[in-house]
Formats: sequence, C-alpha cells, structure tokens
Amino acid sequence: MTAPFADRLADAVRQKNSTLVVGLDPQIERLPACVHSEAQGGDARARAADAIRRFNEQVIEQVAPFAVAVKPQIAFYEILGPAGLEAYEAAVTCAQAAGLLVIGDIKRGDIGSTAAAYARAHLCPEDSDGMTRPAADAVTINPYLGTDSVAPFVEAARTQGAGLFVLVRTSNPSASELQDLVIEGRALHDHVGALVTRWGSDLIGDCGYSSVGAVVGATAPAELARLRADLPQAWFLVPGVGAQGATAADVAPAFGRDGLGAIVNSSRGILYAFGAPETANWQIPVADAARQLRDQLRQAALQAAT
Amino acid sequence: MTAPFADRLADAVRQKNSTLVVGLDPQIERLPACVHSEAQGGDARARAADAIRRFNEQVIEQVAPFAVAVKPQIAFYEILGPAGLEAYEAAVTCAQAAGLLVIGDIKRGDIGSTAAAYARAHLCPEDSDGMTRPAADAVTINPYLGTDSVAPFVEAARTQGAGLFVLVRTSNPSASELQDLVIEGRALHDHVGALVTRWGSDLIGDCGYSSVGAVVGATAPAELARLRADLPQAWFLVPGVGAQGATAADVAPAFGRDGLGAIVNSSRGILYAFGAPETANWQIPVADAARQLRDQLRQAALQAAT
Repeated sequence: MTAPFADRLADAVRQKNSTLVVGLDPQIERLPACVHSEAQGGDARARAADAIRRFNEQVIEQVAPFAVAVKPQIAFYEILGPAGLEAYEAAVTCAQAAGLLVIGDIKRGDIGSTAAAYARAHLCPEDSDGMTRPAADAVTINPYLGTDSVAPFVEAARTQGAGLFVLVRTSNPSASELQDLVIEGRALHDHVGALVTRWGSDLIGDCGYSSVGAVVGATAPAELARLRADLPQAWFLVPGVGAQGATAADVAPAFGRDGLGAIVNSSRGILYAFGAPETANWQIPVADAARQLRDQLRQAALQAAT
Repeated sequence: MTAPFADRLADAVRQKNSTLVVGLDPQIERLPACVHSEAQGGDARARAADAIRRFNEQVIEQVAPFAVAVKPQIAFYEILGPAGLEAYEAAVTCAQAAGLLVIGDIKRGDIGSTAAAYARAHLCPEDSDGMTRPAADAVTINPYLGTDSVAPFVEAARTQGAGLFVLVRTSNPSASELQDLVIEGRALHDHVGALVTRWGSDLIGDCGYSSVGAVVGATAPAELARLRADLPQAWFLVPGVGAQGATAADVAPAFGRDGLGAIVNSSRGILYAFGAPETANWQIPVADAARQLRDQLRQAALQAAT
C-alpha cells in the first residue's frame, strides 16, 4: 500500500529541503535545436513528441536534485495526439524513476461516471480490468461541477495513496472574473476552499496536511494569505512564479509555520532558462535556474516560519 | 474557409429534421461480446482501444441517419492511453466521413498559453508547425478560469469555423453546489451565461445563433427555461436525457420558436440499448433507440414552436 500522498510530499520537502515543482510544459518552438535535430518519428506530431521526450529526460535529470516534483501540463502533450500522450506517460515514468513526485496538470472536471474514468486514467497504475499504465502521484481538478465530479479522485486518494489539487484561486489575469464574485460576504473561491476542506477531511496524513490540496496562484497575494489561514490543512500548489510575474517572495504567505503546506511551480522560467534554441550546453542554465529558485523558496519558507 | 459552426449546425438540424446528438462514451465492460472477441492489440489497453474503435464505427453507421452530431467523451479514450487517443481520433474521422458533426466533450479550461494548446489540439486540423490532426467541429469548455482561458477557443471559432459549448448549468446531481450560488440576485450560472453572450457576440451566424454555445442540463428544467430566455442567441447542448433521468419532454424549453437553438445528447441510453453484451444483432436496438429519441425530440421542438 502506497503511503498517503500528503505524507509522501511532506517527506520529499523535508528530505530535499525544497518546495520546488518544475512544470514540464514543452513548447515545440522553444526546445533546444539539438534536441529537435535528434528527434525521430514518422510524421510531424511523432517527431515533435520524440523531441519532447528527449528534452524532458534531460530536464528531469537536471532538476531532480532541486525539485520535489514535476508537473507535466498535459495540454502540451495532447496537442501532439497519441504520440504526445506517449511522451506524457514517458515523462511520468522517467520522473518517478528519478525519485520525483508527478503532479499531472490535467484540470479535469466532469460528471460522476466520466470523472471515475479520468481518475482511473490518471491515478490508477493498475485496475480491475487488468490494465496497467504510468500513473501520476497527484492531479489538478476543476471544481465547477461540484462534489460528485471530485469524489472519484478523492476515492483514488484513499485507495491509491494519490493526491489532488483543486483549482481554488488561479494565477491567470481573468481568474477574478468568476472566482472573486462575492456570495454572502465570501468570494466564490472561498466557497470552493470550504469544499476542499470538506473533501479532504478524512485524508489528513501524519504530516498534518490532507491529500486533497488546493491550487492558489502566487499572483494574488492577498487571497493567498487569507486562504492559507482558512485552509490550514490543505497542501497548496502555487503557480504563477516566473513567466506569469510573481516572485519567490510573493509566495511566503503560502507556507505554514512548519515550512510545509505549499509547493511552488515554475515552468517556463526553468525550462527555457537557456534562452535561444541554439544555445549550447542548454542543460546548465536549466539546472541553475532550478537551484536558484529552490534557494529563493527556502528563504520565503523561512520568512513564513518567523 | 469552413462555414461558421453555428450555421453548419443549423443546416444539419434542418436537413435531418433532428436535434439528436449521440454521445460516444464507450465503457469497456458494456461493449458487445462479439466486438471484444474481434479486437486486436498488444496489451490490454490497446485491445480495448481496438474494441472501442470497432464499436464506434458500427454505432456511427447506425445512428448517422438520425443524429446531427456525435459527442465523444474523451475520458473514455484517455483511460486507454495513447491507443485510446488513437481511437478518439478515429471516431472523429469516422463520424465526419459519415456526415456527422463532432463535438469533442473535453471540458478543458486552463490559463491562456495552455488554453491555446488545447484549442489547437482539438479544433485546428492543420497548424503553422505543419502538423495535421483529426479535429472536432466543436468542443465543450469549462469557464471557471474566465475570459483568457476561453479566448483561444473563441479565436478558433473565428478562424476555423469551429464551435464551443461553455459549461453553464450541468446535468449532474452536485451541479447546484457552486453553479446555483446566488450573487447579487443572480445565480453563478447566470453570470456564466452573460459571459457566454459576450464571448459569442461577434460570432453570430446567418441562422441567428452564435458559434459560442452553452451546456445546459435537461435535469434542471426551470434553469433551462430561464437560460433559454436570457441567452436567445446561444446554441444549447443539452445533456441529461436517458440514463441521467431527464426525458425528451423535459427538453422542450431548450428550443427556440424556430425549432433551432438546442441539440440534445444521449449517450448510454443509445449506445447500450441492446442490453447484455451477449445480445446478437446489437446494432438494431442502437439504431431503434436513436430513431425513437429523434422522434421524441421532434415533438418537443414542435411543442416549443407553438
């Protein structure tokens, strides 16, 4: 039986003294030229998927010492069709072999029977039909359809030692449009936050946090601080640092006093730290960017503890 | 240049005198035994995907005379990994060859750069990188992240003649939890409805409806009627008939007086009309169920017109 995700994450954060998550969002046109030139495949999608697979393998090797998890954004694989999904599964397998947790950034949300299929697809490495698959350790989930759309993922958290991060307050410019609407004195994202607490109440690990976490963007620091106070037992997955404009310092309110409670994602700021695709030894700036952000996040977590 | 989705849909509804959409939600354990026995593939996922491909081909042939569109629910393909995504793309290609529109039930919703990848992945048959793919005619979209998460799909509607259906009021039991919360006298789903009107205002076709539509479940008839009045130019995609409990008569409020404005999905009620997997000539009950629901929906649309 796999240990609860919440505790596996806490162990990783403590062992590596890191709260860094590296987003694996491979955009074809930004990959190193040498990776493209090595790629093989029958058509344009297959060649691009092979390039992504090669790129990810090297990125994972570079960032594994500094990150606790990777977060492949499945859209950048789905765009390449079946071969892209092979590259996604390869990333899951490769990262887990490198000792990293994998958070599948899938943001799925659907009615019960469909949500059950998504939960099996992404969180169950082996199922009753005899199917096996590379499965993520956790996924991101959209709450708009309510409890029955989330229940199969909560069940997978219970049975598989998996985790989920529910979108509460996202990092994008339009996030406020619906998520900040006020209902009886509380924002919609606060209502979602209360659901996260309810969904996760039976899944609190030895670390004091639940395997049902929340996505809360670093680009809205006031909301981040309030949600931290309101959801003391939820792991936060915090996007928005780097290309989206937030800094490591903006993230400080996300951490608990124990230095746990939040992991922080950067995608483009690390993946493309080498700049132009023609850059030689592109791996070095990627590793440097990961180490640097890990160090900045250590400072931010310390700040929260004092 | 492909004609606007809204007009292509109106033409299909008029030509076939049908508002039926058949949901292609293939659940492995419910497929006909003979389809399973013919399936080939290297492992359990590949064999299941091949079974699905064979099942879909025959279902599409049976329902093509009665339906205007099929709606493959991508979760039931994603569960089979890369081979499942091949079966999804095969369903898109097969249905379009049979003269059906394809609505990819993907319910994606993500930040801008990611949403752009999803829009390309699902709505752009050919892109600037020289990649080609089977693309749906329309997709379903989750609105929780707001305008910037929807914009790339609206852009695809403009440039590709594609369509989108934004989740407004879904058909599942927990839909009311968030979607019916009241903000300044109006439910959250009404606020989303207002956004749908705004997003679709530049994409109104000759038929009088926009290529930016809404998902509104048949299981909430009062909301359906009010949303029809509030969003007179939005095509509605109406799920919830059949296995989810609503009847064709419940759908009457979804139609405009012109008999247009709504298409109605049934998945399990048609796909598995044959009952036990061992049933011989399973295709006949499938065709019968599609014809029967088409006829019932004609009556419902007539009721709306009088």
